[in-house]
Amino acid sequence: MSTVVDRPIRPEGAATGERVPFRANDDSGQWRIQTISAITGPELPAARYLHIGDGGPQHDPVWTLSAFVSNLRYTTALERKALQERQAGLGRAVTHHAVLIPIRKNPAWWSMAQDERREIYTRSDHTPIGLDYLPAIARQLHHCRDLGEPFDFLTWFEFADSEADRFRELLVRLRATEEWSYVDHEVEVWLTR
Amino acid sequence: MSTVVDRPIRPEGAATGERVPFRANDDSGQWRIQTISAITGPELPAARYLHIGDGGPQHDPVWTLSAFVSNLRYTTALERKALQERQAGLGRAVTHHAVLIPIRKNPAWWSMAQDERREIYTRSDHTPIGLDYLPAIARQLHHCRDLGEPFDFLTWFEFADSEADRFRELLVRLRATEEWSYVDHEVEVWLTR
Repeated sequence: MSTVVDRPIRPEGAATGERVPFRANDDSGQWRIQTISAITGPELPAARYLHIGDGGPQHDPVWTLSAFVSNLRYTTALERKALQERQAGLGRAVTHHAVLIPIRKNPAWWSMAQDERREIYTRSDHTPIGLDYLPAIARQLHHCRDLGEPFDFLTWFEFADSEADRFRELLVRLRATEEWSYVDHEVEVWLTR
Repeated sequence: MSTVVDRPIRPEGAATGERVPFRANDDSGQWRIQTISAITGPELPAARYLHIGDGGPQHDPVWTLSAFVSNLRYTTALERKALQERQAGLGRAVTHHAVLIPIRKNPAWWSMAQDERREIYTRSDHTPIGLDYLPAIARQLHHCRDLGEPFDFLTWFEFADSEADRFRELLVRLRATEEWSYVDHEVEVWLTR
C-alpha cells in the first residue's frame, strides 16, 4: 500500500478543477475498508481497499466515485473564521481512522433557492455541530452533483481511534437535523490506514 | 448546418451533470461567429462556427469550452420568482442573435465567503439589471470553474436583431458594477443563426 500523503484541508477559494477519484478495489490503496453500510438508499458493493487520487491499483475498481474540492456554498465569513481557527489538516499521524460518507440530497432540496437552502442549513446548526468536534475530527467536503455522479457530495472525515465514539455522536446529531430530512441516499464507509 | 433545437431555460434545481461542449470550428455549427473580442485578458482564436452539444463538426475544433448548468448560487426565492415570471426560453424563432460571454473572476472574488460574494452581487444590482431586459434578452448561465476550464462561467444570451443596442446597454451597466471589478478574463463572441 502506498503511504498517506499529508494533505492540508483545501482553502475554500481554491477550486482547482481537479477531479479526484475515490476507487474501491481489492488490490491496493492508502486505506483499508472496514465496513460499508447504507444509511439511506442502496448499498455500495464490498471491496478491500480505497485508493484516492490518480495512480494506484492496476485492476478494475469495484466502484469509483469522483468529486472536486470547491468553494463552499453556504459558509459565511464569520463561520469560516471560526472553522479555520479550530480545524486541523488531513493526514495527521494520529488519525488512523477515516470515514467516507457519500450523500445525495433529494429534488425538493435542489429545487429550493439559495436563501431557502441556507435557512435550513442554519436552522439545522450544521456549522455549530461541526465546530463541536474540531480539531479532533478533520473534514473535507468534495462536490460531485455537477459531474453526473450518483451522489452530490463525498464527505471525508479523519480522526484518532479514541475519537470514534465522538464521531458517531456527530453523525447522530447531524442526521437528526431538518437538513438531513432531504438526504435520500447516504452510505458510510469506515476505513483504517 | 443543423437547426437550433428550442431549448427551454433550465430550471435552477435541475443539474444534470451533463457537460455541454461549446466548439468553435471552421466546419459547421448551429451558430455562425460574427466577431470575437477580448474585453479583459487574452483573446480567443478566430473561427467560423460555434457548435453546442455533442455531434456536429468532424474536424478538430479551433477551441472548445465546456460547462454545466447547475443550481444558481446567489439567487433568492423572491428573485427567482421575479425572473421566472418574466423570462422567455432559448431558441425562439425571433432570436437570430446570440452572444457567448466566457468570464473568469479573480482569486480575490473566490477567496471571499458566500455572504461576502452575495453582498457584492446585491450591491451590484446583478438581478435587477438582468430583469430590466427580460423577456427580450434570454439568458442561460453555465458553470465551468470546477472543471478546470480557463473560464469560471459561460454566459449565453439570445435576442432579436432589434434588441442588439439594448443588449449592449445591459453589458455597459453590468461592467460598471463592483462585481465586475473582480472579472479578470472576459471575451465576447457574437453569433447569428
